[in-house]
Amino acid sequence: MNKGLFITIEGPDGAGKSTQIPFIKRFLEKKGYEVLLTREPGGTVIGEKIRGLILDKNHQEMSDITEALLYAASRAQHVAELIIPALNEGKVVLCDRFVDSSMVYQGKGRGIGLESIRNINDFATNGLRPNLTILLDIDPEVGLKRIKATKEVDRLEQEKLDFHRKVYEGYMELINMYPERIKVISGNQSIEDISKDIESKLKILIGEE
Amino acid sequence: MNKGLFITIEGPDGAGKSTQIPFIKRFLEKKGYEVLLTREPGGTVIGEKIRGLILDKNHQEMSDITEALLYAASRAQHVAELIIPALNEGKVVLCDRFVDSSMVYQGKGRGIGLESIRNINDFATNGLRPNLTILLDIDPEVGLKRIKATKEVDRLEQEKLDFHRKVYEGYMELINMYPERIKVISGNQSIEDISKDIESKLKILIGEE
Repeated sequence: MNKGLFITIEGPDGAGKSTQIPFIKRFLEKKGYEVLLTREPGGTVIGEKIRGLILDKNHQEMSDITEALLYAASRAQHVAELIIPALNEGKVVLCDRFVDSSMVYQGKGRGIGLESIRNINDFATNGLRPNLTILLDIDPEVGLKRIKATKEVDRLEQEKLDFHRKVYEGYMELINMYPERIKVISGNQSIEDISKDIESKLKILIGEE
Repeated sequence: MNKGLFITIEGPDGAGKSTQIPFIKRFLEKKGYEVLLTREPGGTVIGEKIRGLILDKNHQEMSDITEALLYAASRAQHVAELIIPALNEGKVVLCDRFVDSSMVYQGKGRGIGLESIRNINDFATNGLRPNLTILLDIDPEVGLKRIKATKEVDRLEQEKLDFHRKVYEGYMELINMYPERIKVISGNQSIEDISKDIESKLKILIGEE
């Protein structure tokens, strides 16, 4: 039913996702694809309002379960309003983080459990899975140092390294769970070398290699 | 672990829940119980804001799945912040509608499926189930007529009778799924007779009969 391609990019904070995303978009556009670049909450009015609730610093009493359900609700709206329509129009949807991030940040980092988070997100997305997930692999300590040097840290980034180690372990588990879908690329390379590795994965996806 | 008692009251709109709730509360208080009367979103700041998003008339593009997840998120906060602490203090928690309502209104009425709604709510409530659910049984057409005569109708009540027939069928399915927990009382009786029937169910619950 979906004629398009759904690509997600994942990795610990500071792995270099933001740097590589424009490269991926340009590469696919040169190949003639129409690319929708998005990330949650995806600019939907409802998603933005849900995200506002999650990030509001006055909401310290929010339970981890409530938070996980709000992320899933925001994702459900993003999928229904933007992603599915774009895929049905034959576009490539390139999404900066998706269900995998919820699984590792909430499921593993906050200790709710990978499977519980997958289940509520399967409901939220109607079981939509990416055709390809590019996972930029970097030691969480290295990633955090990169971020601190470049911009103001947000709430999630402030959490202690311990949390980010658990997130990293979560990504390693996901690699074993979805070896076909998730392609791991080392983030400990030059920007150009990372781009080259990504390019080869994209070529396989679109049938050029 | 929970020392208290958790009682919910359910039924189609117009079944007479609001009339019977003060009776239930008084009856239990006379028996020496401390009763917390609540209904979603339960007065939590976060729950109220989530409910505000759901009911906002500008949000016509909200998907049914998003709505179901937001209801579950609101419930998760209600359970974590109010219901569980009250039960742990040994109180009786009397809740006007709970997971059963989501199952029949979203799961059956909107066609999402009873099981899907139960699954996300099991996650939201950490599997909390009422000790007793009083289901006031009334034909949905009769219930709707009662409501229209007494107050302004809200969005859910405005939905066509067809929807309410499905909700009713959902309640009938729940009776078969949870015969031990759900006690059905006919709403086609005088207020006094309904109260008497409820009283006998409460007496069994607290071990007086």
